[in-house]
Amino acid sequence: MNNRNFMQMIEKKFDQGKHLCVGLDTDYAQMPESVKDGGDLYEAVLNFNSEIMRATADYACAFKPNSAFYEGMGEDGTRALNATVAVAAALYPDIPMILDAKRADIGNTNKHYAKSAFDLNAADALTVHPYLGKEAMGAFLDKKDKGLFVLCKTSNPGSGEFQNLIVEGGDPLYVHVARNVANEWNAKNRNCGLVVGATYPAELARVREVAPDVYILAPGVGTQGGDLQALMKVEMQSGPNRLIINSSSGIIYASKKDDFAEIARAKAEELHKQILSAS
Amino acid sequence: MNNRNFMQMIEKKFDQGKHLCVGLDTDYAQMPESVKDGGDLYEAVLNFNSEIMRATADYACAFKPNSAFYEGMGEDGTRALNATVAVAAALYPDIPMILDAKRADIGNTNKHYAKSAFDLNAADALTVHPYLGKEAMGAFLDKKDKGLFVLCKTSNPGSGEFQNLIVEGGDPLYVHVARNVANEWNAKNRNCGLVVGATYPAELARVREVAPDVYILAPGVGTQGGDLQALMKVEMQSGPNRLIINSSSGIIYASKKDDFAEIARAKAEELHKQILSAS
Repeated sequence: MNNRNFMQMIEKKFDQGKHLCVGLDTDYAQMPESVKDGGDLYEAVLNFNSEIMRATADYACAFKPNSAFYEGMGEDGTRALNATVAVAAALYPDIPMILDAKRADIGNTNKHYAKSAFDLNAADALTVHPYLGKEAMGAFLDKKDKGLFVLCKTSNPGSGEFQNLIVEGGDPLYVHVARNVANEWNAKNRNCGLVVGATYPAELARVREVAPDVYILAPGVGTQGGDLQALMKVEMQSGPNRLIINSSSGIIYASKKDDFAEIARAKAEELHKQILSAS
Repeated sequence: MNNRNFMQMIEKKFDQGKHLCVGLDTDYAQMPESVKDGGDLYEAVLNFNSEIMRATADYACAFKPNSAFYEGMGEDGTRALNATVAVAAALYPDIPMILDAKRADIGNTNKHYAKSAFDLNAADALTVHPYLGKEAMGAFLDKKDKGLFVLCKTSNPGSGEFQNLIVEGGDPLYVHVARNVANEWNAKNRNCGLVVGATYPAELARVREVAPDVYILAPGVGTQGGDLQALMKVEMQSGPNRLIINSSSGIIYASKKDDFAEIARAKAEELHKQILSAS
């Protein structure tokens, strides 16, 4: 694992024209019955994720499990998340793993979150909240081989409550966050990206004005209604494609029958080709 | 557990003059050697927490484990956190448990965090980030028996990067957050409090202007240098004391020898009396 570097891994995938992130928002309640054979949650979740990764690996620039889903399944769920990361590292060593856990605390406490995500687990990148500021985030920022995706403009309909507030200087808060991350958080190791919801292409354009070079993780394509074409149009106007476009339930639950892996692969291929043709 | 209501529990503690929250930031590396007897991390952490809770229960208005420390100890750490919550519920049924996990994601995802914190685990309250806005937080806000502590002005030295930005309307962001939480997030179930670092008494005064009634969780007394007297002076000028004043390492690591529980009790008693005398 020592030679893994998130930035190098994702650049390689970009070079291959791959920008699709497969979101492993795995929920026992939504899994096909055939995978649950035997009834053991840990086994079922790990089997499901293994099948999805195997089916979509050809098209994925990254995998992204969201920690909430696993924590919501209890201790066996968390164990299955950890095992999923280990399986991916062994079988798909060229595909980076973004742990979507949206953590952030004060500096001393973040050391423990960093240890959990990057040392105990072998995630290559982590999503974090910006609210505590750069000073608190040293434990993450100092990991020069790990990526950090800072929430900027989130995909949910009500994300404007604070994110769209106009702050001193005249920009909305999310633009201010984007600028600080691009210029200051990135000053040491250039390992910070941003999260901008695919549901907000106009806001992506504003973010690109102040953060032209950073990786942007864009969730919200599919179930949440994000417009892939509109998003890609904005991105291609600002320069080369540096989006990591996530689809979760649109891929992994495209079928809830025994053919779920086959359909997931077809759906991933379809999204991959849509991204390519818009590039 | 069905009859537990965080707001009722904490009010009862306030009626008893108790405002000290004992922070269970338990770290195997910092525990006394005597507790590690046998070397099993799960047993050691659970033993340590049990001893600390037993020693401080007379003075505590709440216990507050920070999830990061447990996640940083791996799966056995998370198991020990869950067991700690269960032990506390059984032995100290009148002391609420605040899970300091600083979660927040989009609405559908928060259901899983809420399930983890409140259903699988039996926490009475949870700390959350404000960044995604109220719309995303329904899964937490709808739990009318559970408390929610929204990060407002955090205790870390660099918390001003975004929190102190002046936003439209003329207030710093943290005041805007405080107002929205007090007026809007609380509109349905009045189950939201705020987190304001004990290191920022002047900022507490500003928060109290717009959120006079909400519970405020104030971490940062002790190691972080929060001034208890200054904090209490501000609070008493704004009305009755509705602070939940947290001390973690200042209590649980006051001694790292075999007398740790006894010294923790003495430290908790001292802080409790300081709060009382300033009330």
